[in-house]
Amino acid sequence: MENKAATSEETAFDEIKSFFDSAPPLKDGDGIVKKLNGFLEKNSLPTRIGSKRVVCVTSGGTTVPLEQRCVRFIDNFSSGHRGSTSTEYFLKAGYSVIFLYRRGSYQPYCTTLPDDPLLECFEITNESDVQVHPSHSDAVKKAIGEHQAAVKGQNLLKLPYTTIFEYLQILQLIATSMKTLGPYAMYYLAAAVSDFYVPWESMAIHKIQSASGPLDMRLAQVPKMLLVLRNDWAPKAFFISFKLETDMDILLKKAGNALRKYKMHAVVANELLTRKEEVTVVTTDGNISVRRDKAKGVTDVERPLIELLVEKHSAHIEDSRNQQ
Amino acid sequence: MENKAATSEETAFDEIKSFFDSAPPLKDGDGIVKKLNGFLEKNSLPTRIGSKRVVCVTSGGTTVPLEQRCVRFIDNFSSGHRGSTSTEYFLKAGYSVIFLYRRGSYQPYCTTLPDDPLLECFEITNESDVQVHPSHSDAVKKAIGEHQAAVKGQNLLKLPYTTIFEYLQILQLIATSMKTLGPYAMYYLAAAVSDFYVPWESMAIHKIQSASGPLDMRLAQVPKMLLVLRNDWAPKAFFISFKLETDMDILLKKAGNALRKYKMHAVVANELLTRKEEVTVVTTDGNISVRRDKAKGVTDVERPLIELLVEKHSAHIEDSRNQQ
Repeated sequence: MENKAATSEETAFDEIKSFFDSAPPLKDGDGIVKKLNGFLEKNSLPTRIGSKRVVCVTSGGTTVPLEQRCVRFIDNFSSGHRGSTSTEYFLKAGYSVIFLYRRGSYQPYCTTLPDDPLLECFEITNESDVQVHPSHSDAVKKAIGEHQAAVKGQNLLKLPYTTIFEYLQILQLIATSMKTLGPYAMYYLAAAVSDFYVPWESMAIHKIQSASGPLDMRLAQVPKMLLVLRNDWAPKAFFISFKLETDMDILLKKAGNALRKYKMHAVVANELLTRKEEVTVVTTDGNISVRRDKAKGVTDVERPLIELLVEKHSAHIEDSRNQQ
Repeated sequence: MENKAATSEETAFDEIKSFFDSAPPLKDGDGIVKKLNGFLEKNSLPTRIGSKRVVCVTSGGTTVPLEQRCVRFIDNFSSGHRGSTSTEYFLKAGYSVIFLYRRGSYQPYCTTLPDDPLLECFEITNESDVQVHPSHSDAVKKAIGEHQAAVKGQNLLKLPYTTIFEYLQILQLIATSMKTLGPYAMYYLAAAVSDFYVPWESMAIHKIQSASGPLDMRLAQVPKMLLVLRNDWAPKAFFISFKLETDMDILLKKAGNALRKYKMHAVVANELLTRKEEVTVVTTDGNISVRRDKAKGVTDVERPLIELLVEKHSAHIEDSRNQQ
């Protein structure tokens, strides 16, 4: 049994090495590392009671290019609603947040705005001034004000990605920078990561031609990076991963498997159609159903969800300190 | 030769019928028809000299769902820069524009703004007012002012789509509404339309599972709707289509083929890397290279492009009137 696990982990390492070796180089990796280190220096005091906690929230879907000069790609649907709303509650709970988000997906404090806020919330007055429509005034002020307060106060660091390659490369940089935080670090992996990809080297350089009949494609599985992130890059951190499925039976089964296989501290199980009303937090102590509570005027399922996870993170920090 | 053409057209009709029959029903089709008819009533006076011209500009890429409850899809990359910038110049030239655009892609007058204008161009003052950063003030005023003037003046009708199904269904509604305009109608088909799709009926209902090895996919060709649009839906209109390729030799060959096969009035040939500097307008009278002219302070290749096409459209209207 142990041999099998060791072998499976070795295979994962090999697959991951080959994934990174064949990936296109990350643009401005040095700049990202500099931002991360500056942010963490400001936010993480030496480990003492009450030390600042930092959560890495990933948000939105990743893309898989089908051609090197990318015209076509496969996208994993995710608006980023979960990640951006959760970020607001983490900030409120006193966490510093590294928000690794898909370009164009929802931003914290902006989820209640229309699709195109600039054109839908503003107008030009007769005096040629820009003015917010009264109907959107509160939402716009909240979005700009709270967002900028978090960024300026250096409690929120935003890092964008588009492809699966960028996502995993930046996640590795984040893990390396956050390693010194030990149990005070949390990973809240809400991004919808592609399961399949086309290895960069075997990818068509030019646009795939459509002249002759149907298109047959073979996609390889993305190596399970979570295993290495959990065991090697951030062995002491607190880990939350997500499962999204359209079939409830498959969902809970897969969430339980992920909990065991990747040694997550909790897996948040989302069913596509009901996920804004209710999620199931799957842990080794059992499943906890979390619902949004309309009666109390609380509108997001993320509020009770983050409350629960912050509590569990406190217990994790306590446990880690007792083991030292 | 003629028999072969007839057969090919019949096959196209059959394929298109089966594509539409198997597509998911369009949401709020009646609402779209109502908007279209209201817009055209305001804009199209009975055909007389100087009658108002209407152009349908399509913009952005289409998506192809891989699952019925859509988690994964294939996307065709297109920012919508070409379509939105061209719309500005068409409006300037006195055209009314029906802008059929991909949700989230560029909007007219907004292409020079940052990715997230709300968060990057505004700030909250000490008096808790929303204020534009001075550095973005002109661009923001232009975007909101000119955009809203066009929409309020009913010179610009915006219709959003996401999937290939929605795109083609709405395009058919537009063509039906615009048919009475005859040669005064122009189609400027700048959207990047998917060549391949998964027929709705053969699509997985639940999320594709990733447990077991690589994923093999077979995609069918999207039927060539352009043939039916040109010959049947809008036989008198003026047609511009686009080709985007990463290889220049393939590009000009395919542009020429499209010109003949679909009887386009012009095909705009874009090479992926140079397309913002220069395009080639392929016509039966020969190829015309159009470049942006930095010396004159003109920053968009779309300005000379639209000037050229408006001229050619005038000639087309003149020809049509002489033939009556």
